[in-house]
Amino acid sequence: MDNSTRSQVDPFIVMDVMEAARRAEAEGRHIIHMEVGQPGTPAPEGARAALAEAMHRDAMGYTVALGLPELRARIAQLYGTWYDLDLDPGRVIVTPGSSGAFILAFTALFDTGARVGIGAPGYPSYRQILRALDLVPVDIETAAENRLQPVPDDMAGLALDGLLVASPANPSGTMLDRPALAALMGACAEAGASFVSDEIYHGIEYEAKAVSALEISDDAYVINSFSKYFSMTGWRVGWMVVPEDHVRVIERLAQNLFICPPHVSQVAALAAMECETELQANMDVYRTNRALMLEGLPKAGFDRIAPPDGAFYVYADVSHLTDDSRAFAAEILEHAGVAVTPGLDFDPARGAGTLRFSYARATADIAEGLRRLAVYMATRQAR
Amino acid sequence: MDNSTRSQVDPFIVMDVMEAARRAEAEGRHIIHMEVGQPGTPAPEGARAALAEAMHRDAMGYTVALGLPELRARIAQLYGTWYDLDLDPGRVIVTPGSSGAFILAFTALFDTGARVGIGAPGYPSYRQILRALDLVPVDIETAAENRLQPVPDDMAGLALDGLLVASPANPSGTMLDRPALAALMGACAEAGASFVSDEIYHGIEYEAKAVSALEISDDAYVINSFSKYFSMTGWRVGWMVVPEDHVRVIERLAQNLFICPPHVSQVAALAAMECETELQANMDVYRTNRALMLEGLPKAGFDRIAPPDGAFYVYADVSHLTDDSRAFAAEILEHAGVAVTPGLDFDPARGAGTLRFSYARATADIAEGLRRLAVYMATRQAR
Repeated sequence: MDNSTRSQVDPFIVMDVMEAARRAEAEGRHIIHMEVGQPGTPAPEGARAALAEAMHRDAMGYTVALGLPELRARIAQLYGTWYDLDLDPGRVIVTPGSSGAFILAFTALFDTGARVGIGAPGYPSYRQILRALDLVPVDIETAAENRLQPVPDDMAGLALDGLLVASPANPSGTMLDRPALAALMGACAEAGASFVSDEIYHGIEYEAKAVSALEISDDAYVINSFSKYFSMTGWRVGWMVVPEDHVRVIERLAQNLFICPPHVSQVAALAAMECETELQANMDVYRTNRALMLEGLPKAGFDRIAPPDGAFYVYADVSHLTDDSRAFAAEILEHAGVAVTPGLDFDPARGAGTLRFSYARATADIAEGLRRLAVYMATRQAR
Repeated sequence: MDNSTRSQVDPFIVMDVMEAARRAEAEGRHIIHMEVGQPGTPAPEGARAALAEAMHRDAMGYTVALGLPELRARIAQLYGTWYDLDLDPGRVIVTPGSSGAFILAFTALFDTGARVGIGAPGYPSYRQILRALDLVPVDIETAAENRLQPVPDDMAGLALDGLLVASPANPSGTMLDRPALAALMGACAEAGASFVSDEIYHGIEYEAKAVSALEISDDAYVINSFSKYFSMTGWRVGWMVVPEDHVRVIERLAQNLFICPPHVSQVAALAAMECETELQANMDVYRTNRALMLEGLPKAGFDRIAPPDGAFYVYADVSHLTDDSRAFAAEILEHAGVAVTPGLDFDPARGAGTLRFSYARATADIAEGLRRLAVYMATRQAR
């Protein structure tokens, strides 16, 4: 038996870093993890308690494909709290993580060969999921002056069937403000391209509130997750909001592709939504960490950065320091004991000159990591 | 925005039955559920206890994409217990349910337009997942004399790129014995077609042990799940065993498509594998229920059935009673208060003349359901 062509997706470059970090730790070294894309915090206490309790009374069989009705209603209510929107719970679809939402969205919107624009740098799995579905990811090389987000002019001549944007974005942490988002959605509507908005980092924002595509138009697929703000990565539960007349199609796809999102995770997610105090305490940590990063990275020589609007990453242009971010990351791991992510996963064309630093972990780790980076970079520049 | 062509999957006919049953119950009627495809039992006590305990100490972040190493090792060990096979844990891939395994398997093996044979009658989602991935499901109309399983002769002229079989099968409960399975695998190898074996009902077998494709050859994808024997439907955790040289490709796909299976469900699944006493008690219930069905269904007039080798369904030919199984199921629900599944979901061509009866629920329910069916069918025939 042979493997298909569509299955030949790229490896994650960061996996090499993680494996090297694991080996170093097995040898007894202490490594600071600035490569990870997930919160260091567990699911909120209230969510874990609710699940432990549910274990004693609920059989946890299949739920309906679109998710527990009370969870859909509670998510709809969040759109009132966060964006002052009155959202019909019938348009909310609970999914197996945002990963499941992307599979559903791409399948529901695009036929084989469809061209879907994604910003570079961007989350690497967009490209790979599109390819696995025999769709064509079209990299849009974003500009620093646009804060690494696509603008309508970038779409010219690309003949896109769809556009996927993320705000706040991974790896840059930059956001699309309301006019920028509206301009992209308008350009898509004009071009007959579907619009997908990845809002997975909403809630983790610093200077201004992130704008949801739904504040601008209902003619979009909006994807979110309990993984980031709600600190529930491994639980695999997310959601999607779609136009009303797309719900039935998605329901049938979800019934067949997934049957339902994990029942236990839905129960925990519902409880997590009532844990605002604990979630805001997590936010205080991110805020502290971000301030440390914005002060410490330039001091260490990583001064080509834009302050992130949201998420928990800083994306640094290091093209004046290296033309091989992969080797540079390996060098930093070996000599400074800090694991960081080479930009190649996020931007195949230009990522050899960039690094992503995550500040999702504990503040003490971030402080120590920055100290190590400063010491190492000082010796490196002295050579 | 418009929906894609590939997203136009068929609705489940059984959903109409379930909705009608729900309405009847909301009106205060008592309905016996013989339409459900899941155990009535919860996850084993030991699994739920392990998870409740883990809630107090584990952050439940992402696991590696292929699943917790200890769970992969424990699943490999099961192949020793069940089939006397020495299986390399490195070939075991933990998946988000068997649903996730099908998505991974089809993506890893087939390119757009590939033709994949599936037996009719069969699990309806095979067809829909294939379509959603722009593959071509090729229905193989199985014969009663082959106990509703495909045979190599059925493949002639179909130009298949792959064949998917299930043993024990849903809806028939029939199994492929060792020669029958070997013949199909041999025919596939000869034709250069990939072989996928759905073994989700293994463990739920009555007269003889189910044979795994891995007992015959390593050149197959074997799919299984914790949903049926381990009674963990809503947890969405299953597994797949693939040839050694396919593991890396699957790993990359899984990283991108799913990130990881639900961490909590993996923890519970690992514990469930030590709950043999409780699982065998569930089996005692199925055995009792099956005996009741094989006695009661013919008495009620459903006498064109083959004794199921495994799973918890009886598939009945009712073509002498109706030419519209959908209307017949609605009639049985209304007059007998028993929900059953019309065969159309499993066999688009011939399912208008078949029904599926599930005996997965409590024995008292099965006995009452059979009593109601007998009473109603007696009055119906008297008309």
